[in-house]
Amino acid sequence: MIKANDSNRKSWIEVSKDSDFPIQNIPFGVFKKSDNNICVGTRIGDRAIDLNALQKLNYFAGIALGPEIFNKETLNDLLKLNKPVWRAVRDRIAEIFDANNEMDETHKGLVLSMIEEVEMMMPVSVGDYTDFYSSRQHAYNVGCMFRDPNNALLPNWLHIPVGYHGRASSIVLSGTNIHRPKGQQLPVDAEMPVFGPCKLMDFELEMAFVTGQGKELGNHISTAEADDYIFGMCIFNDWSARDIQKWEYVPLGPFLGKNFASSISPWIVTLDALEPFRVEGEKQEPAVLPYLEFKGNKNIDIKLEVQIASDHFEPHTISRSNYKYMYWNMTQQLAHHTVNGCNINAGDLMASGTISGNTPDAYGSMLELSWKGTKPITMPDGSERKFLQDNDSLIMKAHCQADHYRIGFGKVRTKILPAKKLNI
Amino acid sequence: MIKANDSNRKSWIEVSKDSDFPIQNIPFGVFKKSDNNICVGTRIGDRAIDLNALQKLNYFAGIALGPEIFNKETLNDLLKLNKPVWRAVRDRIAEIFDANNEMDETHKGLVLSMIEEVEMMMPVSVGDYTDFYSSRQHAYNVGCMFRDPNNALLPNWLHIPVGYHGRASSIVLSGTNIHRPKGQQLPVDAEMPVFGPCKLMDFELEMAFVTGQGKELGNHISTAEADDYIFGMCIFNDWSARDIQKWEYVPLGPFLGKNFASSISPWIVTLDALEPFRVEGEKQEPAVLPYLEFKGNKNIDIKLEVQIASDHFEPHTISRSNYKYMYWNMTQQLAHHTVNGCNINAGDLMASGTISGNTPDAYGSMLELSWKGTKPITMPDGSERKFLQDNDSLIMKAHCQADHYRIGFGKVRTKILPAKKLNI
Repeated sequence: MIKANDSNRKSWIEVSKDSDFPIQNIPFGVFKKSDNNICVGTRIGDRAIDLNALQKLNYFAGIALGPEIFNKETLNDLLKLNKPVWRAVRDRIAEIFDANNEMDETHKGLVLSMIEEVEMMMPVSVGDYTDFYSSRQHAYNVGCMFRDPNNALLPNWLHIPVGYHGRASSIVLSGTNIHRPKGQQLPVDAEMPVFGPCKLMDFELEMAFVTGQGKELGNHISTAEADDYIFGMCIFNDWSARDIQKWEYVPLGPFLGKNFASSISPWIVTLDALEPFRVEGEKQEPAVLPYLEFKGNKNIDIKLEVQIASDHFEPHTISRSNYKYMYWNMTQQLAHHTVNGCNINAGDLMASGTISGNTPDAYGSMLELSWKGTKPITMPDGSERKFLQDNDSLIMKAHCQADHYRIGFGKVRTKILPAKKLNI
Repeated sequence: MIKANDSNRKSWIEVSKDSDFPIQNIPFGVFKKSDNNICVGTRIGDRAIDLNALQKLNYFAGIALGPEIFNKETLNDLLKLNKPVWRAVRDRIAEIFDANNEMDETHKGLVLSMIEEVEMMMPVSVGDYTDFYSSRQHAYNVGCMFRDPNNALLPNWLHIPVGYHGRASSIVLSGTNIHRPKGQQLPVDAEMPVFGPCKLMDFELEMAFVTGQGKELGNHISTAEADDYIFGMCIFNDWSARDIQKWEYVPLGPFLGKNFASSISPWIVTLDALEPFRVEGEKQEPAVLPYLEFKGNKNIDIKLEVQIASDHFEPHTISRSNYKYMYWNMTQQLAHHTVNGCNINAGDLMASGTISGNTPDAYGSMLELSWKGTKPITMPDGSERKFLQDNDSLIMKAHCQADHYRIGFGKVRTKILPAKKLNI
């Protein structure tokens, strides 16, 4: 039904079998070209495709886009349109680059760049950012470590897709290095807090979705409507300073332990491109309240991988998880978020919460992988990690596997720089 | 030193003695004129002043403003400039409208409107919104009600200006009516939650400040620098659905209990205009960590008043509090918020948290005023309030009192409409 998902389609652009970006993907992003022009674009194989150039050449005739929609520094104006338009654009791109069609050489020169020649930019100006807490194994692990293994899940967890508001301003693109944060921590057995660089620097393996324009304040989006308001997804690293977080978070939740940075991958993969990979989620017991009921398969089989790299060793895999492990799905998250009348805007971002699988090699944070530092992880150079060290790079990758191709997200890679000096 | 604060200055625009807007105020806002043009403006007495018209008439010559800075639908572009420019604009406005100067009648026609003839608009497109929890009496009251009167303050409260991220999209202007939110609640002694309209609808009396453009991610703003990054303040009503909040907030903080709406007053009163009303805050013991130390008087004497009105009675005062009661001041809040490297942008909004004074008639929420519903408040028509009812209007007012004039914020007034039906 979604034409661009035709699994038999091939492109006249060469695509290697292990590429994240076959013609069935067609993600959306923003990049700066070698002439310094910034445009909204997509990618097939190793070619970056300038959608603004395509529109100027009249390739999108008949689609209700309005002028200059791709001559932008973010996807936000595109996000303000709606799913039928997003779908028409993606279907048209699939047509244009279909192996059965051809493109004039002059047009190719205007439209195509080698991916190495463009600089990826933040794809979205994020309005509001919400982080959920929707992996049962993660919530269970945290409950075991900090509370009671016999009552690891808090009373509301099986009834509510628990979430909280995060900081939008500090969401940065893959490749943006971050400094180790500083803050208050309460040393073990101490009565007074101290101030200094975070000692328990952690990542959280998450996926995020980007929204289109919602309804007016006071209205809600049902689970049946939710998919229409979700444009697509990216990989999300919810950086966490565990010592800062632990001291500050009661009673109002995470603040400085999280808001120093979050990192995203540059390409937004459409929800449409992910449709073939829908799977059933875990049965929810006790039954959820009616506004959280949903129809159909709403989980997605997205294979996730986390690696650490450093100056001393190549990327080393420390976790393999999967987005299908989510207890609460996106339609439930969005329905819950708006059921009180809260409005959403084009360009809001909602992250899943740490995605931990059911085995220790599938946990989605150092906190869980090293079990609070009690089980250090050995690196290829023989060094150990309980948490992340300065100059470590953290890499997350994600893809859906079909028989003959994969729909991938690329990666988010971030290096941790030493803490900056405090000037007071 | 700040010329516009000259207490002897009078304007050629008539200003009644009890006006919130003498020539010493000069707040900034956005309004739609009778010709439907929207502009950035200010107010003296009952006159709305079109700053875009003033700029076109060359009144701001010599100030580094750039063109069309007031031909905008928000203050955000002005906020991206800096304090010397903001101050120069305010000083110039004080000159233009000084009783010793005159204005051409044609210019008056272009620049001035009666305040009733303009429609106030949201002054700021809020990027990120943070809510603090900085009134000791409020934190103590909540601790007494929900925890233990002997250990009412949590261990971190005297060390950290506790805060959390809120929802920016649902901040609305005074006069925007809101619907009672719906959501999950756990009835007393029940094991399973139910869904329905909030039964414990509450306000929170707060003040908020609006920021200018901060530093790059990874840098911090010290207490000594903080005032330079604060443009001004407004009244803030942090609507709270107590029953929804109670069930959801452990462990990640308030979410749907707060994000259905927050209401602000339309005029941003500059920090400069508030300087004459600085007072010393409560002594902080134990001593704060060095990055939270500050010099000078950083609290402000702003008199606050809360009223309920309905179809059956005129506005009835239920609380009188004061912004000077804050334990943590704005410079500490901003220094704390950024000490981990979190960046702020022009147009971020940071609210104080509920401002409760030390006596029961100075508490800043129904939760505290009715002490969890155990001490209902009697209205002029004989009806009682434990929490707010449908069709109640909630009014907050704020002003600083000088000998011969007051610097006021106007008011924020919001009517609560019945819950909307859920369509699923």
